[in-house]
Amino acid sequence: MEATLVIMNLAIDADDVRAAAERIRPLARRTPVMTSAGFDAAAGARVFFKCENLQRGGAFKIRGASNLILSLPAEALARGVVAYSSGNHAQGVAIAARHVGARATIVMPEDAPRSKMESTRAYGAEVVTYNRFRENREEIARRIQEAGGATLIPPFDHPLIMAGQGTAALELLEEIGPLDALITPIGGGGLLSGCATIARDMHPSVRIFGAEPEGANDTFLSMRAGERVTVAHPETIADGLRAPRPGELTFPVLKKHVEQVVLVSDDEIRAAVKFLLLRLKILVEPSGAAPAAALLFHKLPENIGSIGVVLSGGNVDFEDLARY
Amino acid sequence: MEATLVIMNLAIDADDVRAAAERIRPLARRTPVMTSAGFDAAAGARVFFKCENLQRGGAFKIRGASNLILSLPAEALARGVVAYSSGNHAQGVAIAARHVGARATIVMPEDAPRSKMESTRAYGAEVVTYNRFRENREEIARRIQEAGGATLIPPFDHPLIMAGQGTAALELLEEIGPLDALITPIGGGGLLSGCATIARDMHPSVRIFGAEPEGANDTFLSMRAGERVTVAHPETIADGLRAPRPGELTFPVLKKHVEQVVLVSDDEIRAAVKFLLLRLKILVEPSGAAPAAALLFHKLPENIGSIGVVLSGGNVDFEDLARY
Repeated sequence: MEATLVIMNLAIDADDVRAAAERIRPLARRTPVMTSAGFDAAAGARVFFKCENLQRGGAFKIRGASNLILSLPAEALARGVVAYSSGNHAQGVAIAARHVGARATIVMPEDAPRSKMESTRAYGAEVVTYNRFRENREEIARRIQEAGGATLIPPFDHPLIMAGQGTAALELLEEIGPLDALITPIGGGGLLSGCATIARDMHPSVRIFGAEPEGANDTFLSMRAGERVTVAHPETIADGLRAPRPGELTFPVLKKHVEQVVLVSDDEIRAAVKFLLLRLKILVEPSGAAPAAALLFHKLPENIGSIGVVLSGGNVDFEDLARY
Repeated sequence: MEATLVIMNLAIDADDVRAAAERIRPLARRTPVMTSAGFDAAAGARVFFKCENLQRGGAFKIRGASNLILSLPAEALARGVVAYSSGNHAQGVAIAARHVGARATIVMPEDAPRSKMESTRAYGAEVVTYNRFRENREEIARRIQEAGGATLIPPFDHPLIMAGQGTAALELLEEIGPLDALITPIGGGGLLSGCATIARDMHPSVRIFGAEPEGANDTFLSMRAGERVTVAHPETIADGLRAPRPGELTFPVLKKHVEQVVLVSDDEIRAAVKFLLLRLKILVEPSGAAPAAALLFHKLPENIGSIGVVLSGGNVDFEDLARY
C-alpha cells in the first residue's frame, strides 16, 4: 500500500488575522470581555465572554465585512457592493460600505427579524427581500452583481471575511491570556475558522469547540462525514446559524482545528438568552447564545478549567424576546 | 436688618468619597462606561453611561453598603446587620455582610420584584416581608435591631452610604475627564448626593441634575419648597425610587449642588428601558433608566454638550420586561 501525502492549503493563516486587526481598527470596536461568578458556577468553568453583542451594528460581522471592503480598489467601490444575509452580515456590510462611500444592496429573507431589516436600511443600504423556502439568495445576489458590476461580499466563505472575524479571538486572547478552550457559534464557519486559526497560533494547546443548533446541524454532520453535508431547510430560532452547509474554505479550517461540534436545542438557547439577560444584564441574540447554552447544559468535556466564549451578536426583536 | 449667617455642615465631603473608593475596592466592581452613537443622536448630546447595572448584585448599592459594613467594628458585625429595602440595597447589604461573615436580615415589601427577593436570599440573607401600604418598614427594622442588637444599614441617609455611592461618579470622571453635566436617578438621594459631592470637587463647573418619576416626585417638590416634602404613597414602575421623601442628610447636599430635578413618566421610562436594551444591548431596570428617559425626551436644558449618566441598576423580572 502506498502512502499518499495530500498538502492542503488552508485559506488563511494567523498573519492574515493580524493584518485584519490593523485594517479594521477604524471601523470595529474593541468589545469588552465580561465574566460572571454566577455563570461560572452554573457552567463549572471560568468563562470569559467576548461581547460582540456590544460591537458596532450589534454583531461581530462588521469585522469580516470591513476587512474585505477596506481591501477593495476604488473602482470596485464605485460600482457598489452586494451581500445576502439573514441580518447581521447585512448590517456589517452596510456600515462598512457607508464608511467608504460605497452603495450597498442587501438580499434578505423576508422573514428576517424586523430589527435587523430596519437597521440595515437605517445604515443606508438598499434591502431586497426573498422567500428562503422557494428562492436562492446566491442567485439573486448574482443577478444584482451582473446587472451593475457590484462586488459580492460573501457572508463567510472568503479569506478576508474569515480573517476579519478571527480578530474577535485575537482581542480576547490578547486581553485574557492563555485559555484551556475557545467556543463560538457556527453558521457557515467564518467566525470559528478565523478564531481557531489565530487562537491556535497564539496558544497551540487551546481546545477549539463550535456550537450549533440541533435544527441546523450541518457542520456537526459534515465533521462526522469528513465532508461538507447540506441540511436543506434548517429550522431554529438561531436565525444567524441557518447556513445550509459549511463553506468550501471554512470547512477545511474547522476540520483541522475543531475538537467537537456540540448541539444545543432551541429551548436550551432560550434559557441561555434569559440567563445572560437577567444575570449578566446583556442582550444576546439566540445565535450568539448557542455556545453559552452549550456551557450551561454541560455539553462540553468536563476537564475544561477556563474557556473563551464569543457572544456573537445581540440583535433581537422585542416581540421575540417577550415570547421566550 | 441683620444678616444671619447659617453655617451648614454637610454630611460628607469629597475626601469621604475618595476614602470610600479605597475601602470598597475588594467588593465593588469598577463598572464599564458605555457610549452609543444612536443614543447621542436621539439625545442631542454626548452621553457617557456608567453601567452600574453591570455592578455586583446588579446595582450601585453594593458601593454604599460595603463602605458602611466594612467600617463596622468586629463586635457589631458579630451581632449582624439589618436593612429595609425595595430590593437593590438589600442585595448590596447581603453581599457585603456575607463578605465579612455577618448575618443579614432584610425587611422587604411583599410586592418587591421577585428577582430581587430571590437573589437577596441567594446571597445568604434572611428576608422579612411587609405590606408597604399598611406597615412601616423603619419600625419593623427597629424591632429587629432591638431584639438582637443588629446594626441598621440605612438605604441612603448615612454619611458612609452617601460617600460609598459617590464612588460611581468618581470612577466615571476619572475615566472620561470633565463633563458639562451629570445626572443620576433620585430615590432617597444617596446616589446623587455622593456623586454630586465628588463631581463638584473634581470639576467645580459640572452641572448636576437628578431624575425622578412623576409618581414619586418627593425631591422635586422638596427642592421647590426648600424643605423636605413627603409623598405618602409613591406610585411608579421605578420601584427603587419610591422613597417617600429625601433624607435628612442627603437633602442639604442636593439643595447645594442640584440645578434641577427633572420628572419622567412611567411610559418614558419604559421607552428608555427598551432603547437601552435593543440598541445598547444592556438591561437596565426602570429606576436606573429614569435619567436616560430624561435625555431621550429632552427634559434637560439644551446647551449640554456632554453628560455622564449613572445607569444605577439592572434587576428586572422577566415577566415585567415582557409586559413593556
